[in-house]
Amino acid sequence: MLPLHSHPSGRHFLQIPGPTNVPDRVLRAIDHPTIDHRGPEFGELGKAVLAGMKKIFQTEADVIIYPASGTGAWEAALVNTMSPGNKVLMAETGHFATLWKRMAERLGLQVEFQAGDWRHGADPEQIRKRLAADDGREIKAVCVVHNETATGVISDVAAVRKAIDAAGHPALLMVDTISSLGSIDYRHDEWGADVTVAGSQKGMMLPPGLSFNAVSAKALEASKTAALPRSYWDWKEMLAINPRGYFPYTPATNLLYGLYEALEMLLGEGLENVFARHRRHGEATRRAVRAWGLEILCQKPEEYSPALTAVLMPEGHSADAFRKTVLTHYDMSLGQGLSKLADKVFRIGHLGDFNDLTLCGTLSGVEMGLKQAGVPHNAGGVQAALDYLAQTSRPRPDQAQAR
Amino acid sequence: MLPLHSHPSGRHFLQIPGPTNVPDRVLRAIDHPTIDHRGPEFGELGKAVLAGMKKIFQTEADVIIYPASGTGAWEAALVNTMSPGNKVLMAETGHFATLWKRMAERLGLQVEFQAGDWRHGADPEQIRKRLAADDGREIKAVCVVHNETATGVISDVAAVRKAIDAAGHPALLMVDTISSLGSIDYRHDEWGADVTVAGSQKGMMLPPGLSFNAVSAKALEASKTAALPRSYWDWKEMLAINPRGYFPYTPATNLLYGLYEALEMLLGEGLENVFARHRRHGEATRRAVRAWGLEILCQKPEEYSPALTAVLMPEGHSADAFRKTVLTHYDMSLGQGLSKLADKVFRIGHLGDFNDLTLCGTLSGVEMGLKQAGVPHNAGGVQAALDYLAQTSRPRPDQAQAR
Amino acid sequence: MLPLHSHPSGRHFLQIPGPTNVPDRVLRAIDHPTIDHRGPEFGELGKAVLAGMKKIFQTEADVIIYPASGTGAWEAALVNTMSPGNKVLMAETGHFATLWKRMAERLGLQVEFQAGDWRHGADPEQIRKRLAADDGREIKAVCVVHNETATGVISDVAAVRKAIDAAGHPALLMVDTISSLGSIDYRHDEWGADVTVAGSQKGMMLPPGLSFNAVSAKALEASKTAALPRSYWDWKEMLAINPRGYFPYTPATNLLYGLYEALEMLLGEGLENVFARHRRHGEATRRAVRAWGLEILCQKPEEYSPALTAVLMPEGHSADAFRKTVLTHYDMSLGQGLSKLADKVFRIGHLGDFNDLTLCGTLSGVEMGLKQAGVPHNAGGVQAALDYLAQTSRPRPDQAQAR
Amino acid sequence: MLPLHSHPSGRHFLQIPGPTNVPDRVLRAIDHPTIDHRGPEFGELGKAVLAGMKKIFQTEADVIIYPASGTGAWEAALVNTMSPGNKVLMAETGHFATLWKRMAERLGLQVEFQAGDWRHGADPEQIRKRLAADDGREIKAVCVVHNETATGVISDVAAVRKAIDAAGHPALLMVDTISSLGSIDYRHDEWGADVTVAGSQKGMMLPPGLSFNAVSAKALEASKTAALPRSYWDWKEMLAINPRGYFPYTPATNLLYGLYEALEMLLGEGLENVFARHRRHGEATRRAVRAWGLEILCQKPEEYSPALTAVLMPEGHSADAFRKTVLTHYDMSLGQGLSKLADKVFRIGHLGDFNDLTLCGTLSGVEMGLKQAGVPHNAGGVQAALDYLAQTSRPRPDQAQAR
Repeated sequence: MLPLHSHPSGRHFLQIPGPTNVPDRVLRAIDHPTIDHRGPEFGELGKAVLAGMKKIFQTEADVIIYPASGTGAWEAALVNTMSPGNKVLMAETGHFATLWKRMAERLGLQVEFQAGDWRHGADPEQIRKRLAADDGREIKAVCVVHNETATGVISDVAAVRKAIDAAGHPALLMVDTISSLGSIDYRHDEWGADVTVAGSQKGMMLPPGLSFNAVSAKALEASKTAALPRSYWDWKEMLAINPRGYFPYTPATNLLYGLYEALEMLLGEGLENVFARHRRHGEATRRAVRAWGLEILCQKPEEYSPALTAVLMPEGHSADAFRKTVLTHYDMSLGQGLSKLADKVFRIGHLGDFNDLTLCGTLSGVEMGLKQAGVPHNAGGVQAALDYLAQTSRPRPDQAQAR
Repeated sequence: MLPLHSHPSGRHFLQIPGPTNVPDRVLRAIDHPTIDHRGPEFGELGKAVLAGMKKIFQTEADVIIYPASGTGAWEAALVNTMSPGNKVLMAETGHFATLWKRMAERLGLQVEFQAGDWRHGADPEQIRKRLAADDGREIKAVCVVHNETATGVISDVAAVRKAIDAAGHPALLMVDTISSLGSIDYRHDEWGADVTVAGSQKGMMLPPGLSFNAVSAKALEASKTAALPRSYWDWKEMLAINPRGYFPYTPATNLLYGLYEALEMLLGEGLENVFARHRRHGEATRRAVRAWGLEILCQKPEEYSPALTAVLMPEGHSADAFRKTVLTHYDMSLGQGLSKLADKVFRIGHLGDFNDLTLCGTLSGVEMGLKQAGVPHNAGGVQAALDYLAQTSRPRPDQAQAR
Repeated sequence: MLPLHSHPSGRHFLQIPGPTNVPDRVLRAIDHPTIDHRGPEFGELGKAVLAGMKKIFQTEADVIIYPASGTGAWEAALVNTMSPGNKVLMAETGHFATLWKRMAERLGLQVEFQAGDWRHGADPEQIRKRLAADDGREIKAVCVVHNETATGVISDVAAVRKAIDAAGHPALLMVDTISSLGSIDYRHDEWGADVTVAGSQKGMMLPPGLSFNAVSAKALEASKTAALPRSYWDWKEMLAINPRGYFPYTPATNLLYGLYEALEMLLGEGLENVFARHRRHGEATRRAVRAWGLEILCQKPEEYSPALTAVLMPEGHSADAFRKTVLTHYDMSLGQGLSKLADKVFRIGHLGDFNDLTLCGTLSGVEMGLKQAGVPHNAGGVQAALDYLAQTSRPRPDQAQAR
Repeated sequence: MLPLHSHPSGRHFLQIPGPTNVPDRVLRAIDHPTIDHRGPEFGELGKAVLAGMKKIFQTEADVIIYPASGTGAWEAALVNTMSPGNKVLMAETGHFATLWKRMAERLGLQVEFQAGDWRHGADPEQIRKRLAADDGREIKAVCVVHNETATGVISDVAAVRKAIDAAGHPALLMVDTISSLGSIDYRHDEWGADVTVAGSQKGMMLPPGLSFNAVSAKALEASKTAALPRSYWDWKEMLAINPRGYFPYTPATNLLYGLYEALEMLLGEGLENVFARHRRHGEATRRAVRAWGLEILCQKPEEYSPALTAVLMPEGHSADAFRKTVLTHYDMSLGQGLSKLADKVFRIGHLGDFNDLTLCGTLSGVEMGLKQAGVPHNAGGVQAALDYLAQTSRPRPDQAQAR
């Protein structure tokens, strides 16, 4: 019997910043019998999900779908565009930026890592300066994480693009949107990204196992001369066969069923509505955190993440002990602090398939857990969230229509 | 495409007092291919669910499973034990007691209905008096609803039994546990019930479509002479073939898969733990209601239902308008007021597969809805529930074990 | 763990004449979360399935959906239209006709049972004669089984109607289509049925647990004076609330999801195509049986059932031993002989969600089982079926379209 | 609505040599809610599936599970053990051997490809000779495909190992078991493989999206100095965290649920029984092919694949037109001929979750398709298979037990 069958009464609250709660519609879609990935029905499916993903990336450019998790799509972005020893400029926004940097190094790239305090987004001005100083045009790419999952801090991707342009520098712009795509407004074309990296298990509301690259014409051009060895991740074979809805090797068919359904849901709700929903839930969460008297890790309001909120524990208190209390008493999973934030922060995920009452349950679990775990705080966080949510509530669009 | 596919982002809160939120394990079990109901595997299944249901009813007596909803099991109780024109004594505890009464009349029985105000349980003393006065022993059965789903009021079944015995009266005791079984302590044998009626879609955590009778030896004896015409509901054929795990006509195989799984869950958690969980959630709900300054319909604390709470709307305010606001704004279904309580109360279901954070989300939806709908109330209901829940929280048994 | 988890490698062949193999689409639909059966989404669902069922019954009249198995819909047909002691004329076509008769008697009706040899359908001429002789118009209803599941024999319902009319008799015509509806052409209106009885688990491709009445205006009129006690089965309350998509008591919500999907499938394929498919599979099956040198139970070609074929075992051989061999060796369930046919026939179901290759697998299992069990027969039955199927094959409509 | 919803009546026969028909138990397992991949329940799941996979590989060595398709596990085998410019010896057994070769070249390796006619397995003697002549020990690895999915030909892996040892050569032995593992006997330890590559969607009965490496101590040692850049595929980080049941980056959680269930099924049936089942189905298939008078692609009986059979079309007939006829008329997918076999062969998959009657349906579809498509052949192939299957049938172990 599956270990997950040990789940106790009631539904688990999975409020880590991904994987997120997968909607029933998506789970049921994944449960359909696997079909021949070379047959006519598959071709229809393939074309539909590729077209849908372009809408999600807000792009007319090519989108690649890998049977792999997000980490694979990071690797794909690098090996398709870079040659051994190439220099890339990365912004240290947190743990995931650091992991991407480490990956780049392991793949044989030279990384210049613009130091950060893990409480701010990438600094466009600093990037501009560095690129302006790069007379030899040695820097081949600038890599930023749109929504740093470890910190709940957003980087201004459009501003980074402007910084690159202001420096008149030819570097590619690569963006990790693993924990933002589908929950936070992201515009591959308008913001001038060259490679955008994404995964299935966050805003896309799927289980993990699919990941994505959106690829600009410039990135595609770069791939022609990029010399890093590659095969599984190679864009070329994908793009050759994708237009007919097929893939060069066996795709993760059942997860693609789920993707089809998730696209129906996101595009049916309307991307603007989806983004507004998460912005509102982010604000409600922060109001709760402030009412508790706790500190939000992100320091600039314009960089607050609509997808998750990282909260600093008061000095002398263990975030992990608190999280364990919440799991043990309230059957809710919260995100842990990672590497240098380990045991110092906990993270509340409010991305993906999510609504007001689930947020209220989530914040209730945090507030009760703080009490249970003896963490100094003021009561009233949930109340603050309720006040804000009630003030800003609108009838659900589908219900408003129905009447 | 199924209309339910219109569900918006996030999970619907189904907080009516049944059907309840069906656990994922149960839904997946129901999704298995239908098997031959005359084959060897079915026999194992049949025996297992019949044995499991005895544990749920806390009985050694026979249990009957019908492919029907709870209303059918009401009918079964009557047609198996009564003859045309028989007199039955029923207690008017609310809408469902009234429906059962109407059914008895339509089946040709004479019903004496002990009037009630829909805010109290059945009155054992009144029953004792009436039976004592029944010199001709014309009353063939006393019928009470254990948990009146329309009002959130419990009747003391053991006390009713004692009343019957005190009167030295041979009437059968029939009990409707449709909204209590599996959520509220109920003891068919110890409390001396003769026929207990139950359904699948409340505490048993299944979709609707199965219903149950637990049948004492005395009731079985009565069925031998009972002259109401019956066929589908007839106990005799069921009991003849049930010991081998089969049914006289086609059973609802896939719902029985779900029942198997639900039994695993309830018995795995332990009935005592299940009952304590619901008592605690009932108390938390009532603390919220009192903090809002609203009135609980049930008037005697010892009769508070652990399964649902009915709340009176302040004079001049529409409960249905409020419920519609909650559905439209917060995607939560609350129970409506029924017949003479229509538009005057709303009902919060806290039975079935349920946990602390789902309750917090539920109460948050009520509190925000009250605000949205302009219903006079004090803020702080959710806070009151949080305080109580945190105070009384224990680690989940499965988690405590795991560490 | 569910006993059904013991299924060995590969998919079980469920070739009893119902329950039938439930399509994956239907199982997945049933697996969706239960919704409020008083909420707006349910109303849409209810209206859709009621409208769809009219198309299946080929009627403009009212259709009733019960949370019950087919046996319940038999009872509903009788208790809504008859009064105690009423006389009904039934045709003994086989085991199920006999069960229906027994039910009628237990409900207090007088049954005149026109004897049959279980190898023929109802005899319209005999019915006409009996009705013509019924000067007092004592016979209130004529009851026939459209497709006798125990024998694989069809009764000519239109001819029975003509016989009643020819006798100028006012009796109602009640028809059991439990194992025909959705697989064999059946026309409630055109053929002049008054009450048609059906179930979910055969041609409708659902698990058991739903059943149906289609009700003519004349039957409805009769129900106004019919005096058999009834409540659960009462048409009146159903018809009062059905137009808004709701039901008077809790419906089997999740099975209704499945019904919605099954209707999409059957109406999508087109009823004419569905019926032709089963006729062709019936013919292929009979060719196999003849090639084996075995005898088909049904004796008149115009009464062959497109839904199932009952096959007589050679004298001195046990049909049940044979069926057990098939189950044990080839993981296929075949239908048993019932009551007086016990151990003498086996039944091959070819109704419901079914296609050519599944039929070939089925017939292969029979042929190998005959060999294994030492039943005298000629090889070549499968070959005969293959020849016929190949000769009569057409491209699947959906595929023909796609090209 | 998912394009796969267009499936016509009855179940599709997916008889390509993978992806295979996914058992219902596995699909339902995958449909469970995604859990926190850093939480305690996941750790239990992770440990269970890693331990189970060792049994499947028949190894005590380390097993790696990737969220990727089989192609990724090929890449993993190479990048973890090789350095740029390394020489590998590969055996040209067919299309997949050729694809693996092409991948090795694209990753910067030098491949020596021992030519083959696509109708035989790898030649151990030829390998021995080549290695014996490799005085400089330049060849770092020998790569063979255990079961060439494109041809239905098995290579004798144990003999290849002996050939390497006979030459006293230190080359690693890498084996692709993508279409054999879980269906054909394979022994990583006993046969002395260093890296074994596998995928989820064939004998493992899962949808595509997981792949595997089994890694000998010698291969692990080689990975320490292997210089090909790698990150996603890197064994080191996997092995560091796997013992606690976790993965260095997000795993494909829901597919792992399916893997858990598939392991329960395969190990429950017993690997020896699984292998015998497929050997028997392979033989039955070949008897059918011979009876049709068609030619089996594989030329040596000892190299016949128990997982699939590739069949040569008679000269002048298009295998693809035939396959299209089968799909259009009989709703069965057969495998196509690949690259130089395109349009010349079709492939019948008989691996994975499969039983006698499904095989009979499959062969029936082929025989009827041959007729329909006007391909010259003798009737009687299905009959030949039936004869063999009936002769060699044993009661199913679970059923034999049950009685």
